Amino acid sequence: MSGPASPEEYVALHSLPCIVMRVTVSVAVAGASGYAGGEVLRLLLAHPEVEIGALTANASAGDLLGQHQPHLLPLADRLIEPTDPTRLAGHDVVVLALPHGASGELTDALAALDGPTPLLLDCGADHRLEHVADWDHFYGGTFAGAWPYGMPELRHAGESGTAAAQRQILREARTVAVPGCNVTAVTLALQPGVSAGVVDPGDVVAVLANGYSGAGKSLKPHLLASEGMGTAMPYAVGGGHRHVPEIEQNLRRAGAADVRLSFTPTLVPMARGILATVTAPLTPGTTTAQVRAAWEDAYAGEAFVRLLPEGQWPTTAATLGANTAHVQVTVDERAGRAVAVCAIDNLVKGTAGAAVQSMNLALGLPEQLGLTTVGVAP
Amino acid sequence: MSGPASPEEYVALHSLPCIVMRVTVSVAVAGASGYAGGEVLRLLLAHPEVEIGALTANASAGDLLGQHQPHLLPLADRLIEPTDPTRLAGHDVVVLALPHGASGELTDALAALDGPTPLLLDCGADHRLEHVADWDHFYGGTFAGAWPYGMPELRHAGESGTAAAQRQILREARTVAVPGCNVTAVTLALQPGVSAGVVDPGDVVAVLANGYSGAGKSLKPHLLASEGMGTAMPYAVGGGHRHVPEIEQNLRRAGAADVRLSFTPTLVPMARGILATVTAPLTPGTTTAQVRAAWEDAYAGEAFVRLLPEGQWPTTAATLGANTAHVQVTVDERAGRAVAVCAIDNLVKGTAGAAVQSMNLALGLPEQLGLTTVGVAP
Amino acid sequence: MSGPASPEEYVALHSLPCIVMRVTVSVAVAGASGYAGGEVLRLLLAHPEVEIGALTANASAGDLLGQHQPHLLPLADRLIEPTDPTRLAGHDVVVLALPHGASGELTDALAALDGPTPLLLDCGADHRLEHVADWDHFYGGTFAGAWPYGMPELRHAGESGTAAAQRQILREARTVAVPGCNVTAVTLALQPGVSAGVVDPGDVVAVLANGYSGAGKSLKPHLLASEGMGTAMPYAVGGGHRHVPEIEQNLRRAGAADVRLSFTPTLVPMARGILATVTAPLTPGTTTAQVRAAWEDAYAGEAFVRLLPEGQWPTTAATLGANTAHVQVTVDERAGRAVAVCAIDNLVKGTAGAAVQSMNLALGLPEQLGLTTVGVAP
Amino acid sequence: MSGPASPEEYVALHSLPCIVMRVTVSVAVAGASGYAGGEVLRLLLAHPEVEIGALTANASAGDLLGQHQPHLLPLADRLIEPTDPTRLAGHDVVVLALPHGASGELTDALAALDGPTPLLLDCGADHRLEHVADWDHFYGGTFAGAWPYGMPELRHAGESGTAAAQRQILREARTVAVPGCNVTAVTLALQPGVSAGVVDPGDVVAVLANGYSGAGKSLKPHLLASEGMGTAMPYAVGGGHRHVPEIEQNLRRAGAADVRLSFTPTLVPMARGILATVTAPLTPGTTTAQVRAAWEDAYAGEAFVRLLPEGQWPTTAATLGANTAHVQVTVDERAGRAVAVCAIDNLVKGTAGAAVQSMNLALGLPEQLGLTTVGVAP
Repeated sequence: MSGPASPEEYVALHSLPCIVMRVTVSVAVAGASGYAGGEVLRLLLAHPEVEIGALTANASAGDLLGQHQPHLLPLADRLIEPTDPTRLAGHDVVVLALPHGASGELTDALAALDGPTPLLLDCGADHRLEHVADWDHFYGGTFAGAWPYGMPELRHAGESGTAAAQRQILREARTVAVPGCNVTAVTLALQPGVSAGVVDPGDVVAVLANGYSGAGKSLKPHLLASEGMGTAMPYAVGGGHRHVPEIEQNLRRAGAADVRLSFTPTLVPMARGILATVTAPLTPGTTTAQVRAAWEDAYAGEAFVRLLPEGQWPTTAATLGANTAHVQVTVDERAGRAVAVCAIDNLVKGTAGAAVQSMNLALGLPEQLGLTTVGVAP
Repeated sequence: MSGPASPEEYVALHSLPCIVMRVTVSVAVAGASGYAGGEVLRLLLAHPEVEIGALTANASAGDLLGQHQPHLLPLADRLIEPTDPTRLAGHDVVVLALPHGASGELTDALAALDGPTPLLLDCGADHRLEHVADWDHFYGGTFAGAWPYGMPELRHAGESGTAAAQRQILREARTVAVPGCNVTAVTLALQPGVSAGVVDPGDVVAVLANGYSGAGKSLKPHLLASEGMGTAMPYAVGGGHRHVPEIEQNLRRAGAADVRLSFTPTLVPMARGILATVTAPLTPGTTTAQVRAAWEDAYAGEAFVRLLPEGQWPTTAATLGANTAHVQVTVDERAGRAVAVCAIDNLVKGTAGAAVQSMNLALGLPEQLGLTTVGVAP
Repeated sequence: MSGPASPEEYVALHSLPCIVMRVTVSVAVAGASGYAGGEVLRLLLAHPEVEIGALTANASAGDLLGQHQPHLLPLADRLIEPTDPTRLAGHDVVVLALPHGASGELTDALAALDGPTPLLLDCGADHRLEHVADWDHFYGGTFAGAWPYGMPELRHAGESGTAAAQRQILREARTVAVPGCNVTAVTLALQPGVSAGVVDPGDVVAVLANGYSGAGKSLKPHLLASEGMGTAMPYAVGGGHRHVPEIEQNLRRAGAADVRLSFTPTLVPMARGILATVTAPLTPGTTTAQVRAAWEDAYAGEAFVRLLPEGQWPTTAATLGANTAHVQVTVDERAGRAVAVCAIDNLVKGTAGAAVQSMNLALGLPEQLGLTTVGVAP
Repeated sequence: MSGPASPEEYVALHSLPCIVMRVTVSVAVAGASGYAGGEVLRLLLAHPEVEIGALTANASAGDLLGQHQPHLLPLADRLIEPTDPTRLAGHDVVVLALPHGASGELTDALAALDGPTPLLLDCGADHRLEHVADWDHFYGGTFAGAWPYGMPELRHAGESGTAAAQRQILREARTVAVPGCNVTAVTLALQPGVSAGVVDPGDVVAVLANGYSGAGKSLKPHLLASEGMGTAMPYAVGGGHRHVPEIEQNLRRAGAADVRLSFTPTLVPMARGILATVTAPLTPGTTTAQVRAAWEDAYAGEAFVRLLPEGQWPTTAATLGANTAHVQVTVDERAGRAVAVCAIDNLVKGTAGAAVQSMNLALGLPEQLGLTTVGVAP
């Protein structure tokens, strides 16, 4: 290029005719002072088609966002309003980043208001499960019913190549249930083997290393920095974790007739990230090449799921801040099992990135708009 | 907006005439497998005007970048070439992210090649110091001479408001010396008080909490994870750190007649971030209001330096991944000192962000192009 | 030695006549479920003369100690009783590990009970300050008055060699005010220079890197693991920290006519440890050799304060779990200041170790009994 | 007790006749500057029967121990000698804390020297495996042959209650192979179910969260603090880890006819600790009560293995610095698997503590002498 120029000269010299899309989507976020809400806002600030609307919360209503989310500098002086339907009305999209159980009531109230109902993205658990029995067993209380499931890469039985069926569902959706973060890591790790029939979903074992932000900002002693630094601790051991039925549901969707899952999350000293180690028996006669082929077929066309080169294993750091899942798989001949590992950022691909990716599909925007595959490391 | 649409329909419905700038700047990075080089690439991947050219390194030449920088997914399959002038030639910009001492020789060789000399951004120390005496005392070896200094916010004596003089120097620069990371944190913390004459630069004390990435990927026992987790350790105590003369040089530029600085960096268990606590005596008769006013005047117009609301203190987490410096200042009446704190990401505002910001100025691009003020937290 | 033998044979073969001291000291701990109380118990479990008596707390009364302190295995099945005077009565020693303000009332009630008043060790702040003005300015509420100060190594003006005067005070004490953790680190770092007159206490600057356990188990958002991991954040900046007057008091005791202190603690991502970087101007004409000599004279005879070999700097990891302070000092000629660094474990030398060391003195036991100088690292 | 007294008065007043064992065991440590060697020394410093003899190493020979192990204050001024047989000769015990492959040659040389052969404790892998086929497959090179295995709690087929058979082997041992750290965690987690026949060892899945000290002080990029902080990364995935055959060997010893094990270690951001999550199918007809009973029967009598109260899960922090394994087990009805979790400090119960515990047995000393069950937390 030529030498220095003023910005004006530069534009004059180096411009071409083109088109630009004007900002047309206004998005309100309920739960703006929490981790999920904050991450949704972080991603929306980088989205070329989004105008950030109302920011609401409960305990922190009346504060400035900068007091709770100092990293979101462009929004530091925005006022947090109370979470009530009238504040959320009049937006194209409403993102609900609330404790589970809180969104059902709010969505009814929103539907009752005049004007067009916004696209609703629920980062909570209320609308993820399809079977009331699962809801009753793992959550309890009124079952709000399932919404279209916000995992574009979710494979349906019989699909090969890039997932298409789930994307079509999301393109037609006006409500979206954003998946659980652990669910995303375990599903993306194992689903290629299930849909290809090379692993047996009847004896899956998943153990996860989890960063603390997955637990939210709740003030519990075991979530204190003093307690968490320098220790590893499992929780919800023995099948009680609420993400179990959601994982089973996904693997059934991918083609599993019967799923049995042993699932153990483990808190480790990091703020973000999930590393899921997932293993399942090989189906009789399966070769290592067939296992490799199944994962390659599933993810070769996926922009946000990266099957690493053979021999390279995922680290959560490589996905930090990005909407990517890094996946690797190998065969343990001695144990007769496939071992798949998936690393994600629980707040991005595990929550806010899935919400924005689903929003893009539901709005007819390019699926990748405003999302990055570049992590922040080291 | 209306309901769902295909991307094509969307564009048809929502487009306006405009102009776009075509990609015109090709950038090569020497030292692409290190932390500074990796961070430069991370930022350039988000820069709308940049095309990433040759990636070179020494020990890792011949590897794919993904083996060393797995978080830079779009570049994972790019080959790392050996660092020699012919590989770097033919680009608009060359970024040198090499150990100090390595860039002088390379830049001579680049200048000797045919064709236009690229804009050179040196992330090393070789061209930061103006005085050969400082170089001899803190570095030694051949003095390569000072280049235009890549800190757009550096205030010159007598300036008020947003820094203009340094920006003008950078707009005309064809070579840029990127500042040291600790230097940036200490300078941005204190310079408003120096240029306004409200603090005495003759007895400055700076103590820093530093993340490990500042030490680079060098394989030394005290940089091992086992050693660093759960401990704090000072280094280069007593005035021996190479960043001391560079800080003094900046404070003189800001108007200090005589600078005396006690400087102590401290490694703490984090990968990124610098928190600089900098204190200096108040000049006689200075009021708290005058101190506040000095910092407000200096930074009200700076896009990348945020003076936090009174009472809110910087955290490195709020700047992680962003090109921002968060600053706060207060007066300790009892001690007769102003205490200023600055938090930055050592790899962004402390290195790669400063390089890109300076590059934008030198190329006549908008200064903020491709840089974010949004951090990744928690 | 000869080959294998049964324990019985071993004793028969390898025994000598001697004497042993019988366990004579029963110690009750109020606040047993907190960090300070837990650490006191950890040390007492290794003390050959102590029998652990009542364990009391408020919120956790009725629980087993193992639910709150799982690392204290020998006490895991001990019941936590409510904190009231009758539970604490009848012990030789009562350790108060309570929030500040809570101990004054309790000690009055204990004194009012029949029977001998136990030796009282208050880990809280209530009895540390000698001047009511300091109390009113930094704490407020009723001033409980100063108790003998539990820092055996505190030097008195004019003392040379190992501290003797403060030890004599503690040998005669029936109540002990355990010092603040930051206070211990800063005092041990700088007092040799003050008592030797080689540094000027009129312009002291101290910046600390602090582990999170110093903040106790209080449930505050900024103390969550998600918030603390990967960040550094200052607090109580500008002279407001309650440890300021206590440090000034100690330096005056060491001989300072007038003390001015700029004090800034900084939370960094570790559970334990304080690294204090403390700098003060050299007094005119002071040589580096005189500075070295002052620190060597002060600590050559101290069992729990280690002046490291020249050139080696303290790390908090080397003191983790031990009752040691690691100290180093150097002179910054350019800045005209001495820079002293002290590393301690805030819960041991900073709290519980100081309590046990003072208890030993007050009970006429060997000062080092039950305390270790061996840290747990890496 | 009565009021203050001098130490002399105290002894006079409070003494009883008794016996004491004189220090009779001199211990040399080869590899004193590494993590395993340093931890052995840390424990030996607290052992009432041990006199620390020669400290040897290779690269650091000629340095003072304090330069490499500053936390071992009482040994800070001890000289590190070169590792050769003559330096190690003449001691009652020699601890080998060397890279695998180095101990075989050294032990031959020690045996060839005049005088009694010392008790040899090998913290390396050279003498752990019983089958040359396992050695060839996982290590290669000359097979040195198996030594008595230093895990006193290892259950033999058919044993009930506290392990007795392995202890008898160790009482008669003159050489001891100290177990691998991961092996200890997985074995202690699962062996009760195997020996009681309530779980099927034919499909065991173990996933571990590992602190970095397990990797030693080796200078590898992925072990740098910058790389490790804030990330989780698996290694040796798919059955290739050298601890696999050792675990299988232990489970066979405990009664498993056929063992199949999927084993995945994961580096997480902590310096110490292993949390092993181990799951195996229930044998047909097994009840939850039978599972609980099996673990209770196995560990009720073990001083260093703690089966936690039902519902409380292990954390590595609770075992830090202690020779304890914290274990918990539950049944996942839905998955048809038992899930057992074991937390240890990899350097204590996983290495140095096992060495000292075995040494005590081999010397006819009380097994627990010099070992603690109290962890350092938070």
